[in-house]
This record gives sequence, C-alpha cells and structure tokens, in this order.
Amino acid sequence: MTDIESLKGFYDRYPEEFAAWREVIDVVETTAAEFGFREIDTPAVERRELYEIKSGEELMDQTYSFEDKGGRAVTLTPEQTPTRARLVQQRKDLKTPMKWYDTSKRWRYENVQKGRDREFFQTDIDVFGIESVEADAEVIAVAATIYERLGVADRVEFLINDRTLLESILSAYGIDNTEAVMGVIDDKEKLSDAEFRTELLGAGVSSDIVDNVVETTSVRGPIREEVERMAAIAPDDEDAQAAVDRMADLADALESYGVADACKLDLSIVRGLAYYTGLVFEAFDSEGELRALFGGGRYDDLVGLFGSQDVPAVGFAFGYSTTRELLKKEGEWPGEALSTDVYVAAVSDDVREAALGFASELREAGLVVETGLAGRGLGGQFGYADSINAETVLIVGQRDLENDEVTVRDMASGDEEQVPVEDVVGELV
Amino acid sequence: MTDIESLKGFYDRYPEEFAAWREVIDVVETTAAEFGFREIDTPAVERRELYEIKSGEELMDQTYSFEDKGGRAVTLTPEQTPTRARLVQQRKDLKTPMKWYDTSKRWRYENVQKGRDREFFQTDIDVFGIESVEADAEVIAVAATIYERLGVADRVEFLINDRTLLESILSAYGIDNTEAVMGVIDDKEKLSDAEFRTELLGAGVSSDIVDNVVETTSVRGPIREEVERMAAIAPDDEDAQAAVDRMADLADALESYGVADACKLDLSIVRGLAYYTGLVFEAFDSEGELRALFGGGRYDDLVGLFGSQDVPAVGFAFGYSTTRELLKKEGEWPGEALSTDVYVAAVSDDVREAALGFASELREAGLVVETGLAGRGLGGQFGYADSINAETVLIVGQRDLENDEVTVRDMASGDEEQVPVEDVVGELV
Repeated sequence: MTDIESLKGFYDRYPEEFAAWREVIDVVETTAAEFGFREIDTPAVERRELYEIKSGEELMDQTYSFEDKGGRAVTLTPEQTPTRARLVQQRKDLKTPMKWYDTSKRWRYENVQKGRDREFFQTDIDVFGIESVEADAEVIAVAATIYERLGVADRVEFLINDRTLLESILSAYGIDNTEAVMGVIDDKEKLSDAEFRTELLGAGVSSDIVDNVVETTSVRGPIREEVERMAAIAPDDEDAQAAVDRMADLADALESYGVADACKLDLSIVRGLAYYTGLVFEAFDSEGELRALFGGGRYDDLVGLFGSQDVPAVGFAFGYSTTRELLKKEGEWPGEALSTDVYVAAVSDDVREAALGFASELREAGLVVETGLAGRGLGGQFGYADSINAETVLIVGQRDLENDEVTVRDMASGDEEQVPVEDVVGELV
Repeated sequence: MTDIESLKGFYDRYPEEFAAWREVIDVVETTAAEFGFREIDTPAVERRELYEIKSGEELMDQTYSFEDKGGRAVTLTPEQTPTRARLVQQRKDLKTPMKWYDTSKRWRYENVQKGRDREFFQTDIDVFGIESVEADAEVIAVAATIYERLGVADRVEFLINDRTLLESILSAYGIDNTEAVMGVIDDKEKLSDAEFRTELLGAGVSSDIVDNVVETTSVRGPIREEVERMAAIAPDDEDAQAAVDRMADLADALESYGVADACKLDLSIVRGLAYYTGLVFEAFDSEGELRALFGGGRYDDLVGLFGSQDVPAVGFAFGYSTTRELLKKEGEWPGEALSTDVYVAAVSDDVREAALGFASELREAGLVVETGLAGRGLGGQFGYADSINAETVLIVGQRDLENDEVTVRDMASGDEEQVPVEDVVGELV
C-alpha cells in the first residue's frame, strides 16, 4: 500500500478540469488551423547541444537534462523554437511560407509559483521563410482572433514595436551604441524616471539627447495614430523612414484584419536582446492587473544558427497560464463539467441488449452516449446520469418495447415522453 | 553552423505526415468520447518509485530515468497505468465508473526497430470501479468500433479469453499449480506441439491430462459457438460453469454491440501472468501477417497496489504502430497531404486589404484560409495555392472590385466564375 504523489509543478488533470482546458486549447488550435497553420509533431527529448546553441548557462540550468542509456546528453524540450529551427534546416525542399503550429508540453525546472509550473502546455505558432509585413500582421491577427473567440477581446491589448524602428530613431539621434541603450530601454519598466535617465547617460547617451529618448520610449497609443505622429517627428533619415513606413503597412494590414483597435504602438517594448530582429509584441490584460499573456516577434537570424540556411521567421508561443487567470476573472473560463448527450437506461437485464443497440445507433450518429455498466437499479442509473450531466435519458423497458416504444426523459425539465422505436435517433440527434 | 539530428527512435513529423496521424488519433479519441470516456491529462514525468511498484528490473532498465535538480529519482512515463492508478487512489470521492481516455507520448529505451520506437503515442482507454461483464464488453466494443471507422473492420479480429475460465477448466482437470501451467500456455505460440507437451509435463500436468490441456488450448473459434461448446464440455464444476456463464454474457453483450462477428474465443490467450485477472484480449490482423495490433484486459488487483483502495479495472492501450502498418497495407492510411479550403489571392497591393477582409470573413465561417504573405505575382500565388491543395482560389482584383465582384476559381476543374461580393461567403462555405 503506497500513496505516491505527483512531482511538484506537475499536474493531474481529471476529466472535469481537463474538459475546460481542452476547450481553450481547441480555440487556439482551430484558429491557427483556419489561418492555414499546419500541425507538426516533434520530440519531447532532444540532444542537449540543440539548446546550448542559443541558450545561456542560466537557461540550461533550468532544463531537465540527463544522460540517456546510450551516454547521450539529452534535455526535455524547454521550448520548441530550437526544434523548429532544426526541422526547417533539415528540409531545404519545403515551399515557403512554412506555417506551423503545435501544442505540447514543455519542461523547466523553475521555482514553482502562481503561473509558473515545471510542466506546462504551450502552442507555438510560427511563419518561416517570409520577411514580409503581411506575415507579421498575420501572427498578430491569429493572436487577436484567439482572444476574440475566447470572449475577452475587449480586455486584451497588443503592445507592438519594431526594434529596427526604435534602433533607427536612436541612430538618428546620433546614438551609435544602440544595443547598450536598447538594453537600458528593455529595463525601463523596472526603473524610476531618474534611474532610467541615469542609466541612459551611463550607456553613453549624451545629456542633450536624454529627453528625446525618454519621450520616444514614452510613446504608447493607438497604432495608426502613433505611426502618423512618428512619420511626422521621426528623424529625416532613410532607415528611420523605412521603419516608419513598414509600421504604417503593418497598421494597414492590422486594420484589414479588423484587429487594429486592440493594437498599440509602444516604443519601449524590446523583449530582450538575444532573439528578436524586427517586430516585437506582447499581449496584455488591458486593465494591467496580470503579467503578460504572452509575447512574440520576428527572429530572422535565429534559424540560421541551427544550420546552413538563413530563414526569416515570425511567431509566438501561447502559454496558457495568464490567459487562464484572465478567463477565470472574466467568467469566460469554460465551465468545469462533463457533458453527455444521452444516457441509455435499461430497466431490467432482459432489455439490456436492446439498450446497447440504441446506444450504438446514437453513437453512430455522433452523440456522446453512456449506458449502465454497473447493474444499478433505475434510481441509481438516474443518479449516475445526473452526475455525468446527461441531457437526456433514454429509458428502455420491457413493456414499452412490446409497444415498439421507449421513454425519453429530458433531464433538465424532468419531462418524459414515449417515442416510437424507429424515431429515437431522429428525435435525439 | 550546425546540423543536429533528432535522437534515434524519436520522430520529426512534418505537416503532411502528421495530418494523417492526427486523422487516425481523432478516430480513436472520438470513438472513446462517444462511448462516454472522458479525457484526462497527466504528467509526462513521475517519481521513479511509481514504476517500481509493479515493474520488474528489466522494464525499469528500459525506462528513461534520471535524478532531477531536486535530487528526486524520476522517470519519463513508459506507460500510463501506474499514473492512472495513482489518480484513482487520490480521489476516493469520484463516482464509478470512471471512464478515462488520454493520448500522449510514452518513452522506452529499447532497441529501435520496425514498429518499436523510443518515443511513441498511445491512447489509454479504461473503465475503473466496475466489475461487470458490461464493462468488459464496452471496451472491446470501443476497440471494434475504432477499426470499423478506420475502414478495416473486416481485417481485424479479437482473440478473447477469460483467465478465470482457463484456470477453472485446468482446476477441474485436477491441476493445482494452475499458475505454472498457464505460464507454459502463455508460451505456447513459440513452442512446437512436442515441446508444449514436454513443458506441460514439466509443469506437473499428469500424462493422462496433457491431451485435454492441448485440446482446450487449441480452442479458437467464433465466440458464441465456442462458448456453447464450452458449456457442453466444460467440467461440471461451479467455478468453471460460472466462468462459462460470464463468457456467454460477454458474447450476448458483444452481439448487442454488433461486434461479436469479429470476436473469437481463444483459450490459449493469457497475456503474461503479472497483470490481468479476468478478461484478456488481443486484436490481430485477421490474415495473421502482422504482430498484435494491441491487447488489453481486466486487471482488478493492480490499482490496489498503488494505495489503500481496491478498484477493479478493464481497458487497453492503443499503440499506433501496427495499426499504421495495417492501414497502409489496406490503403486506408489517410492521404499524406495538406488540405486548404480557400486561398485568397490579391492581384495587386491596392486590393490587399480587401483580400484580408474576405479571408477573415471566410475564417469566421470556419474555413481553412490562406492568403499571400510573400508579395508574389498571381502565377506564384497559384503555384503556392496548388502546393497547399487549396480547393478554391478567390481572386481579388481592382477591376472586379469596382463591379462589386470577385473571381472564384475551382482548382480541380480550373473553372472560374464572377461572384458578387456579398455572395462570397455563402458561395464558398
């Protein structure tokens, strides 16, 4: 006799809870599929060196890494991007764009806290092989459509930036070590205004420019409006104007998708330095009460690290944790309850075969149907039917059958009616 | 520049291949769901001790086991039964029957060969908490329905036995060390007739009984027919008759489900000694060319090993490997090709916004829709539409739009027609 628990940060999801998860995952996957993203399936375990290519020691320390029985250093996938890069590199014959999605688990050995588990679901959605602004707009449109379908579109906003735009503006201000300065901007949220200015000066921004940088990185507003303002105030420099033009094209495309209202240009969004090359975006609860829902962007240089081919890419990884908090808060997390179309109750053993026959027919018609497996009396069967939220109970009794009838009970109202045997499927589908 | 490969026995499934896999997995899951089985989600990593409870050293040697950063001995799930037992034990409040399914990956460090991978999908389908023959019949009916829907029902047969029936018959022959004899019977397939007889004698079967045992374990035929024969010839012993009666009830139930024709009683099916307590079954390609498709049975004593509660159980784990071979052989493996409802082609940049608007509307209506992301000309767009197997291309051009029209091209026939803008969605859904 033992009672072994699951590992910390790993979850057991029983049917009622997982039915809700599945509904949300389905929305994410169906939306990706309708935009023409295609499902792939990739290993949960990879050679450790695949992650060493782009991850620092800190991240590697958070992985589940071990030596397999063949002496290989292997790692449970902490994220899917390196795997995708490997897949893209392996198949130089694939037509572009490659638009891929996949929902699977990832593992990271982190301190377990609210919204941070050691095993978690993620849906990765990426476009590979296309540099265009249309691809950028498409991934944001997918994300926005997901929140629309989850019923919280009016509670989610996308903060959007283009790192080349920010960099062009900084360059045009005469800043040459833009990378160091962008590093400071990436930290802006954590700093007071005074600290931010001090850090900027420390990164080599000359004092007559600091105000400009503070002002630039304070830009946050409706994308169309802010892009127009940028077009007017951005430095008269080729790179800066090209970047503004691209952002204007993005605003156009987001409007065509009908999602521009949820999008704000925010010039302080950088999302770290290691990874993204152009567009960056983060989805937020618009009341600002929760951590970021997720982030993404364009990473044109990353795939090239994993093989001989340079392949532009844009995408995001949808984690479920903060979104789940938001949905619960808004009452939009799916009800945690089982659903069952029909429970077929046999009144006595003599009619059990007939009952199973009805159940088979109803399943053929696509319904979720349970039958009695436990030899319970009718009262017990109603209790069980209730516990699985059966909408209808089909009562199969000897006397009814002799009249070529069965009884159909609506579980919500308690109403019962006799239905001719040949009409049962038509009645219940 | 690097080119790192996936690990041996682990697979990269690109969209076309995985679309076929997904179709088959969907059939398995939908069938389970229609029978009222509910989806659960469980950890991919468990404490190693969970597997030590019932697995021998040989099986543990085939696991991916390691120490996590917290010093815990952990294992990647090689099968889901121990986890399910843990879940059942944790929740004494759950109503019976608990009917669970789950499709996820399992990992075993085995020699990689045809049909034996180190990472593989499995769908577990189990009924917990019910001892009845109806539950036994239900899991076989689920399995049979899966093969029906996969289009190979006439190529699959289920070899069914009840270990208590076999044991009763052996006991009634006066054999008292039935376990040792059943061990020999479990090996029968690998032995010649002479070897089998020698082993039986070695296991203590007296020489005047050997013929009976050979005859009994040669029984294989349509379940109804063989059960009737058993009823006539089985020893006049209470246990034996009770076991025959239960098998007769199973035959009744399988007939009600309409799956009895695919079921044979085969008294030599034992499926090892460690695990099963009553019903055992194996699904086979009826031409006998392939290894077993999968096996399952009743295991009433297993869950009790994992906690303080004894819980009867019956079920099976659907592996995909042999079934995939069978489906390929029969031409029933789903075509490995992408499918796309509509590709929306923009003739020029000016109409791109309109094109994206049509795409959004069509997706709202549930279609899989791609649009041009690459700034290709119309010819290039047709080529891409063709590569993703688009059924229809919606051509959005400036002149058409001025007439409130678009052009709809059927990709199979090449036919084109002008459609009023307001009819587009109705026309294509």
